[in-house]
Amino acid sequence: MSVVTWSDVRAASERIEPHAHRTPVLRSTAIDRVAGAQVLFKCENFQKTGSFKFRGAFNTVASLSPEERERGVYAHSSGNHAQALALAAHLHRIPAHIVMPEDSNPIKVAATKGYGARVIHCPPTHQGRHETAARIGGETGATFVHPHDDPRVIAGQGTAALELIEDVGDLDVLLAPVGGGGLLSGTLIAAAHLLPDVRVIGCEPSGADDAYRSLRERRRIIDFTPHTIADGLRTPLGENTFSILCQHVDSIILVSEDEIVDAMRTVWERMKIVIEPSSAVAVAPLLREEFAGDRLRIGVILSGGNVDPGPFFAELAAAASA
Amino acid sequence: MSVVTWSDVRAASERIEPHAHRTPVLRSTAIDRVAGAQVLFKCENFQKTGSFKFRGAFNTVASLSPEERERGVYAHSSGNHAQALALAAHLHRIPAHIVMPEDSNPIKVAATKGYGARVIHCPPTHQGRHETAARIGGETGATFVHPHDDPRVIAGQGTAALELIEDVGDLDVLLAPVGGGGLLSGTLIAAAHLLPDVRVIGCEPSGADDAYRSLRERRRIIDFTPHTIADGLRTPLGENTFSILCQHVDSIILVSEDEIVDAMRTVWERMKIVIEPSSAVAVAPLLREEFAGDRLRIGVILSGGNVDPGPFFAELAAAASA
Repeated sequence: MSVVTWSDVRAASERIEPHAHRTPVLRSTAIDRVAGAQVLFKCENFQKTGSFKFRGAFNTVASLSPEERERGVYAHSSGNHAQALALAAHLHRIPAHIVMPEDSNPIKVAATKGYGARVIHCPPTHQGRHETAARIGGETGATFVHPHDDPRVIAGQGTAALELIEDVGDLDVLLAPVGGGGLLSGTLIAAAHLLPDVRVIGCEPSGADDAYRSLRERRRIIDFTPHTIADGLRTPLGENTFSILCQHVDSIILVSEDEIVDAMRTVWERMKIVIEPSSAVAVAPLLREEFAGDRLRIGVILSGGNVDPGPFFAELAAAASA
Repeated sequence: MSVVTWSDVRAASERIEPHAHRTPVLRSTAIDRVAGAQVLFKCENFQKTGSFKFRGAFNTVASLSPEERERGVYAHSSGNHAQALALAAHLHRIPAHIVMPEDSNPIKVAATKGYGARVIHCPPTHQGRHETAARIGGETGATFVHPHDDPRVIAGQGTAALELIEDVGDLDVLLAPVGGGGLLSGTLIAAAHLLPDVRVIGCEPSGADDAYRSLRERRRIIDFTPHTIADGLRTPLGENTFSILCQHVDSIILVSEDEIVDAMRTVWERMKIVIEPSSAVAVAPLLREEFAGDRLRIGVILSGGNVDPGPFFAELAAAASA
C-alpha cells in the first residue's frame, strides 16, 4: 500500500478545484511533427504562482487542523515552493514563515513576500537552510511543509495529471520532470488509477541523475553535486517519492543541458509560451524523436514558467531607447 | 457603406475556421488587479505563423478565382505578412512570391521559405520594395496581396474579434494595436455588428503616431519616420483602413516605448506567454490604469508572438555550459 493513494489525489482535487487554475492543455502542430507523435501539454506554467507547486502546497494547508492552522506553516525553499506555500497560506489567512537562502533570486523573494509570507534569510548551504528552518519551527510551533516528500504535497501534485487525463482521455505515455519526485510521484498515483496501461516516464537532467541512478541501484542516492540549469531538479528524491517511483515508474530518461535549452527555445518559438528549464527537461526527449513513429499520444506536464526575463528585457529596453 | 461589411467578416470566418486555430481567450488575476478591470486576452500569438496575419492572408487566397490561384500571389513584407501569406498559399497549393528586404530577420526569411514560398530579396528601402514587387508582379501575373488595405485581408482580420466576442459575450471596451490598420479595421467591422455599444480603441506607439494624427487632422498622414520597437506598427494607414477608422473608431491611445517593454514583461511574468512589441502596445494602457475603477470588461487582441528569442537563449546557453 502506497503512502499516497488514488483517493488522496481525488480528495486533493476537490480541495484545490475552487482555488487553483484548471490549466489548459495546449497542442502544437510543429512539435507533433518533430516528435512524430501527438503531444498534449498540460500547462502548469499558467498555474497560480507560476508552477504546479501551488497544488501540493494548497492541499497541505487545506488539510491542516484548526489548531495547526492557527500556528501556521513553515518551509525552506529558494524557488517555487516558497511562493506556492506563501500563497496557499495567504488564501487560508494563516501565517507562513519561509526560509530562503541569501542568494535567492530577488524576484522570487519579492513574490514570496508579496503573498504576505514572512521571509527569513539563511546562509546558502544545506546546513544553513536546515538549521534556520529548525529554529523557526521551534520558535513558531508552525507545521513544516516539505517541498516534495509530504504525502499531502504528493497528492496535490497528482491533480495536474488527473486533470490532464480527464481532459484528454487515453494516453500511451506521460512525461514529467523529476527532481525531488513530488510531481512525478503524484502523477504516478493518478495515472495508475486512471490509465493503468500508460507508461509514466520521469525526465531528468544528466547533470542531476540521482533518480536514474537511485532506481538502477535500488537505493536512494542523496549525496551528489548537481550541475544543471534546471534549478527545480537539483534536489534528491525523498523517502516517500523514492518508494513510489520504485513501485510505479516505467523508466527515467536523461537529457543534456543543450537539450534543455533547445527545448525551451522550441517551446518559445513554436508555442509562444514561457517554460522554465525544469519543464523543458520533459520536452527534450520528444525533440530527439525518442517516441517517434507510432503516432503515440503523449502527455507532458509543463511544470512551471518561472524564469528570469532579465536578459531578454535588458536588450529590448536598450533597443527601445536607441 | 463600408468597403468591408459584416457579411464579409462572417464569410471570412467560415472560410478560415477549418484551417486557423481558434485561439484561446486567457485571463490573468494579476493583470486584472493592476488594470482595475476584467481583461480578456484573445491570443493571436498562438495563431498559425505566430500572428493574426494568417487570417487575412488565408481569407484572401481562399477568395481567389481558379485562374487567379493558378498564377499565385505575391507581396512585400519583412515580417508577419510574409509568413502568413506563404502558409496560406501553401495550404492552397499555389505559388507565393514574397519580396523581403535584405535586412529582414533571418528567422522570418527561413520561416517564409519553410512554408514553400519563393523569397526575393530587395534593397531595404520603400522604393526598393515597391520596384521589386512591381517587377515580380509583372513577371508572374500573380495577384498582389496588400498586408492591410485589401478588403479581403481586413475581413479576415476581423474574425479574431468575432471569435473573441462569440466566446466571451459583452464587452465595454475592445483594444487592438494599429499600424497599417488592417486588424483594427476588421475589429471595428465585427464589433459594430456584434456589440454596437462597445468602444473600440486603437493603440499606437507615440513614436509612430500617424493614425492618431491622421484621425485628428482628418487626412491620411503617410510621410513620417517611425521610431518604435513595435516593428509591426511602423507603416501608415491605408486608404481603406483610414476610411473605416474615420467611421467607426472610438479613439486612439498613444503609448511610450518604455510602456511597450514594460507591458511585454508584465505579460511574460504574469501570464507566461510571449507577445511581440506590437501586441504589447494594446496592453500598455491597462497598466497605467487608463480604464481602472469601473470594473469594465475589456477585450484585448494580442496580435502576435514573433519576437527574436536570441538574447535570452544566448545567456541561458552560456549558463548551461558554465
